[in-house]
Amino acid sequence: MDKHHYTIGIDFGTLSARAVVADVTDGTVVCQSSFSYPHGVITERLPETDVVLPEHFCLAAVDDYREALWQTVREAAKEAAAKGIGKEQIVGIGIDATSSTFLPVDAGGVPLCKAFPDRPHAFMKLWKHHHAQAAADDLTGIAKGRHEVFLERTGGKINAEWMLPKLLEIFREDREIFDAAHYFMEIGDYVAYLLTGVFTASRGPLGYKLLHSEEDPSITPAFLSAVEEGFEGVFAKIYGTDGEDAEPERKVVSLGECAGFLLKEVAEELGLPAGIPVAAANIDAHVAFPTLGIMDEHAMLMILGTSCCTILIDRDSRPVEGVFGIVKDGVLPGFYGYESGQSAVGDVLSFFVGHMVPAAYQEEAEKRGLSIHELLTEKAENIRPGGTGLLVMDWFNGNRSVLVDTGLSGVILGLTLETKPEEIYRALIEALAFGIREIIDSYEQAGIPVRELYATGGIARKNALFMQIYADVTGKKIHIAKAPEGSALGSAIFAAACAGKERGGHPDLASAIRTMGHTEPYVYEPDDGNHVVYDRLYAEYNRLHDYFGRGENDVMKTLMTMKETALVR
Amino acid sequence: MDKHHYTIGIDFGTLSARAVVADVTDGTVVCQSSFSYPHGVITERLPETDVVLPEHFCLAAVDDYREALWQTVREAAKEAAAKGIGKEQIVGIGIDATSSTFLPVDAGGVPLCKAFPDRPHAFMKLWKHHHAQAAADDLTGIAKGRHEVFLERTGGKINAEWMLPKLLEIFREDREIFDAAHYFMEIGDYVAYLLTGVFTASRGPLGYKLLHSEEDPSITPAFLSAVEEGFEGVFAKIYGTDGEDAEPERKVVSLGECAGFLLKEVAEELGLPAGIPVAAANIDAHVAFPTLGIMDEHAMLMILGTSCCTILIDRDSRPVEGVFGIVKDGVLPGFYGYESGQSAVGDVLSFFVGHMVPAAYQEEAEKRGLSIHELLTEKAENIRPGGTGLLVMDWFNGNRSVLVDTGLSGVILGLTLETKPEEIYRALIEALAFGIREIIDSYEQAGIPVRELYATGGIARKNALFMQIYADVTGKKIHIAKAPEGSALGSAIFAAACAGKERGGHPDLASAIRTMGHTEPYVYEPDDGNHVVYDRLYAEYNRLHDYFGRGENDVMKTLMTMKETALVR
Repeated sequence: MDKHHYTIGIDFGTLSARAVVADVTDGTVVCQSSFSYPHGVITERLPETDVVLPEHFCLAAVDDYREALWQTVREAAKEAAAKGIGKEQIVGIGIDATSSTFLPVDAGGVPLCKAFPDRPHAFMKLWKHHHAQAAADDLTGIAKGRHEVFLERTGGKINAEWMLPKLLEIFREDREIFDAAHYFMEIGDYVAYLLTGVFTASRGPLGYKLLHSEEDPSITPAFLSAVEEGFEGVFAKIYGTDGEDAEPERKVVSLGECAGFLLKEVAEELGLPAGIPVAAANIDAHVAFPTLGIMDEHAMLMILGTSCCTILIDRDSRPVEGVFGIVKDGVLPGFYGYESGQSAVGDVLSFFVGHMVPAAYQEEAEKRGLSIHELLTEKAENIRPGGTGLLVMDWFNGNRSVLVDTGLSGVILGLTLETKPEEIYRALIEALAFGIREIIDSYEQAGIPVRELYATGGIARKNALFMQIYADVTGKKIHIAKAPEGSALGSAIFAAACAGKERGGHPDLASAIRTMGHTEPYVYEPDDGNHVVYDRLYAEYNRLHDYFGRGENDVMKTLMTMKETALVR
Repeated sequence: MDKHHYTIGIDFGTLSARAVVADVTDGTVVCQSSFSYPHGVITERLPETDVVLPEHFCLAAVDDYREALWQTVREAAKEAAAKGIGKEQIVGIGIDATSSTFLPVDAGGVPLCKAFPDRPHAFMKLWKHHHAQAAADDLTGIAKGRHEVFLERTGGKINAEWMLPKLLEIFREDREIFDAAHYFMEIGDYVAYLLTGVFTASRGPLGYKLLHSEEDPSITPAFLSAVEEGFEGVFAKIYGTDGEDAEPERKVVSLGECAGFLLKEVAEELGLPAGIPVAAANIDAHVAFPTLGIMDEHAMLMILGTSCCTILIDRDSRPVEGVFGIVKDGVLPGFYGYESGQSAVGDVLSFFVGHMVPAAYQEEAEKRGLSIHELLTEKAENIRPGGTGLLVMDWFNGNRSVLVDTGLSGVILGLTLETKPEEIYRALIEALAFGIREIIDSYEQAGIPVRELYATGGIARKNALFMQIYADVTGKKIHIAKAPEGSALGSAIFAAACAGKERGGHPDLASAIRTMGHTEPYVYEPDDGNHVVYDRLYAEYNRLHDYFGRGENDVMKTLMTMKETALVR
């Protein structure tokens, strides 16, 4: 039996959760276990009721998450034991979750959906609950009217997926639930409470989804009461204080700090040692950053999934166009964490494959035992940069950064009677890369250089053509995350820092990151010749980006409005 | 046995020819016969040789056409006889063919490909032979430099598909063939020669494809020798004169006039009476005009096939933007014939169905026994105007009118992750209709009103959704041709006029057209509400039409150039 120490990272995704047991000496994941939420994403009716949900509601069952916590950790701990790892070798737990996914609880920490099983606003709201768009628009309008400085850190808008508009929605639509809530808690913080019995609020989600900040101008009771009389009451329901002077009753914890220590009864239930530290909960996307072993300023991480989230850290705060959030200590303590994003990446390619690829390609793929993505990638590899004759605008789900505009849509330009599906496929990938280059430009124009790129997520590991095009378009090296289960490992890294050296963890977060985070040995290097061609194509992309995206020609919005009108006529 | 009289119309298409026997009293087609050319379209190598053709060569075998002539007419005549129609009841023959499809012949009318079977330029060149693009560009450049007024009637360009650039190409690339040619003959004129033994040149193709005109400024020996020293020699090879003073040796005949009379030996071979008139040959697209029974100014006929050709007649000549040709007596005698066009219509829909429709739709279509076009049409019918959220630029094969630019390409704008194939299909049809509206606008801006639309071709008869969208977009009534085999009937109409009253035909062309041409009893009426919505969409189309099409943003050309560069690298 080795004498290594281990930490557990638990990642709560949208459809399932997973736990890993990671070796603190090198970050190796030795066991893992996952669990799919029985109720999945709830959009139709409340569980075990006839209560039909309003449109754009997107809820989850908190008991599913509780069950996922018990199941995955118990399973992982059991597997670790089977591998000869002693209980005492496990020295910490870290948690991350989607955000802002939150729930109202009473003073005893009981979710309000228990007492109000037929009230939609009593339930846990998922990050992608879009019913609060009107509330978000109102918040944006009022903040703009008051010239609130915090807008500089949010791309000029309050996003409907954040906590604040969802709170306003509850305040407006079900005051009884709002009043009954003692705390509104991010699910990550709630899991930390289940493990430790302590109410905390992690600075990560708090900063990104509620604009919390101790230093920079942030939301104030004055702003909230300007939004709606009485809405400033949310402060007490987040911090247990009115937000102005009193010391918060609920502890605000920084990333890398402890939320608390594992309760004895929970430890027994899970098969873990009691009293080990539980790290402050993190946002699932952000926690991927340290898994690449980087703590460098100006390294941009792209988390490539259905959409793309970019993370970058800098010692200073500067306004960046179309940024999704700038939060002090929001990704790693001591740095401002910058998040930007693209609202569809894998989704764009999946849409194309599902809706625009002819039967002949599907047959060829089947015959050759390839997925359609593999077949198209193989064919697209033979096309040189500039060789598609096409230019795509990748806004199939709007534009998150740098235009922050859901009213934009996709374009395929340059079609001829000879255009082939693989040419469109390649042009789609190129457009997504141009979108990243717009984001990089927005940082560099703000005085924040982007030196190298890092990538994680399925596409990053699986599609070499995709990554090479990204390198060629941006002219930057791309390093790939080694861990396929990025987020859970990230939580294990934070847990190792939290455990500290004396318990067998790491003396500090930097040590944990550098020891446990890794990239693949290979690096995607930009090809100079290709980069020159893409410079030219990017100039064309950029011109249309500004033409359609900055108000010169609002045809996309006109089309959306006309479609909505046509649907209701 | 009835005492009606009949005429024969023969239509030479790109892949096959057909002959009809039509009743001169009402235009009823009583018999028809068709024949596919054994050699089809020749693009790879010369028949029965190893001579590989240069790129963009597109030839045909004149013997195929000769065989088609014998086969179809003999067959139709035999069938007529079987129906009790006496040989003497057949009173005339009319011919139409693709244009400019022409061949060089010696003084005895023998095609030069007989003496030079291994010389590509000795062969018949099809209308869509595109090897003469460089010659066409040179002709355009020189004509512009000399401010040649004829450019006003050709949309400002010499088209590579016309006869003139193809002649320059022969002059430059195979002087021996050029010199050996006694005449260059349109295939329609050559068929008339085979039937009558008389060399004629019909004013229809002569005007459209060689810019011939007795009244308006046209090409002159001075222009031709400015193009290339000695090239003015083409005059003698068209007219049998140098084009300046001498009376032409080869007769120029107007539409509606006789080219000559059926030779005795040919009549015997075909089973027809000797000495019946053979009408001046016509262009296959233009000959469709009279089949709708119209001789009205300002009625625009759309010939909807793989591409679209629009025909309109007016007593006056006025410059119309992007017109393909304006020719006096070019469609009907006494009028200026105006031709405009779209370079892809059916081709755009076929491309979409073949390259961008997913397997699930193909399966659904198969299961329900529908073609994919039928399935998509059915689904697209349920979408209201404005309801696709999409805007398409229909330039998948460039833009013929009004921009006259092969360097333009197609665009699909407004794509989202929810876009459905039927929405794109409908948006494609709408874009094609917007393209027609641009053409209508070009006439109306030139002071030529377009009162009503007429349509012929497969799409016109088969796709009611397509025609209704055209009516709603243009705000004009659309009448549909009754005869499915439009062109051959048109030739029979000209034959009936040629035959004259005394032989049992018609006293004049007007009488033949009004008696033998018909539209369907139903008419597509524009819906006012839909038209208002399409006005708004058309404004958006028109804006992008000008933005991409008039030089403000040349991205389409940049992409084409980049693609060509990428292919040769």
